[in-house]
Amino acid sequence: MTRTLLDRKPGESSEAKPPTQWLDRMRDKHITMAHGSGGKAMRELIERLFVEAFDNPLLAAMEDQAVVPLEGLRQQGTKLAFTTDSYVVNPLFFPGGSIGELAVHGTINDLAVSGATPLFLSCGMILEEGLSIDTLGQVVSRMREAAALAGVSIVTGDTKVVERGAADKLFVNTAGIGIIQRDVAISARRACPGDVVITNGNIGDHGVAILLARNELALESTVESDTQPLHDLVRLMLEVCPDIHCLRDATRGGVATVLNEFAAASQVAIHLVEAAIPVRESVRGACEILGLDPLYLANEGKLVAIVPREQADSIVDAMRTHPAGRDSAIIGEVKETPNGAVLMATAFGGLRVVDTLVGDQLPRIC
Amino acid sequence: MTRTLLDRKPGESSEAKPPTQWLDRMRDKHITMAHGSGGKAMRELIERLFVEAFDNPLLAAMEDQAVVPLEGLRQQGTKLAFTTDSYVVNPLFFPGGSIGELAVHGTINDLAVSGATPLFLSCGMILEEGLSIDTLGQVVSRMREAAALAGVSIVTGDTKVVERGAADKLFVNTAGIGIIQRDVAISARRACPGDVVITNGNIGDHGVAILLARNELALESTVESDTQPLHDLVRLMLEVCPDIHCLRDATRGGVATVLNEFAAASQVAIHLVEAAIPVRESVRGACEILGLDPLYLANEGKLVAIVPREQADSIVDAMRTHPAGRDSAIIGEVKETPNGAVLMATAFGGLRVVDTLVGDQLPRIC
Repeated sequence: MTRTLLDRKPGESSEAKPPTQWLDRMRDKHITMAHGSGGKAMRELIERLFVEAFDNPLLAAMEDQAVVPLEGLRQQGTKLAFTTDSYVVNPLFFPGGSIGELAVHGTINDLAVSGATPLFLSCGMILEEGLSIDTLGQVVSRMREAAALAGVSIVTGDTKVVERGAADKLFVNTAGIGIIQRDVAISARRACPGDVVITNGNIGDHGVAILLARNELALESTVESDTQPLHDLVRLMLEVCPDIHCLRDATRGGVATVLNEFAAASQVAIHLVEAAIPVRESVRGACEILGLDPLYLANEGKLVAIVPREQADSIVDAMRTHPAGRDSAIIGEVKETPNGAVLMATAFGGLRVVDTLVGDQLPRIC
Repeated sequence: MTRTLLDRKPGESSEAKPPTQWLDRMRDKHITMAHGSGGKAMRELIERLFVEAFDNPLLAAMEDQAVVPLEGLRQQGTKLAFTTDSYVVNPLFFPGGSIGELAVHGTINDLAVSGATPLFLSCGMILEEGLSIDTLGQVVSRMREAAALAGVSIVTGDTKVVERGAADKLFVNTAGIGIIQRDVAISARRACPGDVVITNGNIGDHGVAILLARNELALESTVESDTQPLHDLVRLMLEVCPDIHCLRDATRGGVATVLNEFAAASQVAIHLVEAAIPVRESVRGACEILGLDPLYLANEGKLVAIVPREQADSIVDAMRTHPAGRDSAIIGEVKETPNGAVLMATAFGGLRVVDTLVGDQLPRIC
């Protein structure tokens, strides 16, 4: 029988501090914006706090979704993928999308990059007292449309309201489940020397779209967020190349962060070619003015794949036939050294290290 | 091929308002605390906004979890239950528990009342800049302990950070999945005249514990939250009585709200006997001083079941052998009239209507 809290012995207070040795290894004493950035501080928080505390191999895999064992499915040769994301983007609406599309696409994409077909989403809303019902309705409407277009159903939900000032307008959490029907072995640990690095199009659009929407730039140009679901593109990619080695969507922390995770987990070097990386002119311009690097900007509809060299061209050709992959390109390759690092051959003929983001480039980007 | 947002036609702006006829039926123009109370305003928001917009039969069932069809499982005779809840309780720590236990037990319980064995949870954290790592560590530690005691694994997660003042310390979302292995038919629509109403113990503890922890009462007594996982108790109940008709945990809005939902969905009357409802003396005292009604106070480890009369005694006997059901009791019965209503025979010999909560009794209770 499960031990419940009612079994607590007399004098065994619920306020006694439980053992938290893992806490001692956290260098920071307070949460900073960097802990949400997608970079090193966030990784430390996740590794040293959550993964240590919740201590199980599925979480410790540190993928963007858990592939969970269910007896009945195993017998069918399928697996269940499960993921969650909270969305706190500011502003709620921006060119190309809103928190509603992000909440649907982001969770779909975390499922898709495991090779899963997304099926069902949950929707947990935290609402600030005083939020206009019209604003909430527009967000919900965007979620409805995004879910319908992607073929997923929002089947369960929860609504909480907090006092004015205790939250900023509205936050959304979506969790998602999907079925992996193919025999895939996608993992951050599978990059091999000789493999090729692919992305499905222009990077950095979402990050710049949010900056422009916040009026933090006095620029005339409009850049739209790239928010889009990627599961159908991934389906196509897996048809052409069932043996995709690594696959992840490049959200917070951008392409640079995903590639650093691949390089570290696989113990390989990733060599990028700057001239091959697709970046919209307007995004490049904004980055130059602001000293931002498109490699670190968030995307909401871009993935990075590492695939066997012999299939790279056919997979890119196939991706280019898909609306979500028109500007797909080979952007680099995997080598043996320098182990664990990401390097880039710059347009000026040099070679630079593309490190993991340490601080916080842009808060509340998703 | 899925239509993606990239297919948008030129001139088809992403800022055009999508159709939201359902919005016109919302009477309120702004979110109030009542929309999070568990009562009528929240139900209207859910029915007229979320259920209309997300439009699918699983969500429209308005249960606390969705039972989703998965081909491989159906062939095994099992089903998957999926649920989510966000937690915004204030304060984070209180006698008997914390937001950490609530986040684990609450989601376990939403699965349990469908007859599911909870297996996997997700954890989405929204953190306020400046939160102490020690506080976060204590919450995570409580989640770890609660999950371990209940036999569930937290397998996937997400962390967002917002600026100081954009959230109140920390909010947690957990989603959960579980497997329904038995042939159960639990539904809010299955209460029949002649059935008996059961609860597993003292009601109102959690609500009063939070009030005391907020120092809103100048009372000496300490009441501990009843936060506890209920899946093992439900397992036992289903062993004794596989044909439980209705089953729900009585959280926000309390026992009164759950029973009103059963009465409305089943088109029956529920008659309670006040003297039979277990309420702790300290809770009764606090309620008398403050004019609160224990029937409307939140619980975090109490369920309400409606079962066939012939099995009521044996199910209660079995429940009393379980640590989470020691004070189980029959508290009322189902009759035909007045259709859709909940009535209570008071200790003074009268009969009163136990209506749904309209306003907001206690904000941020979970």
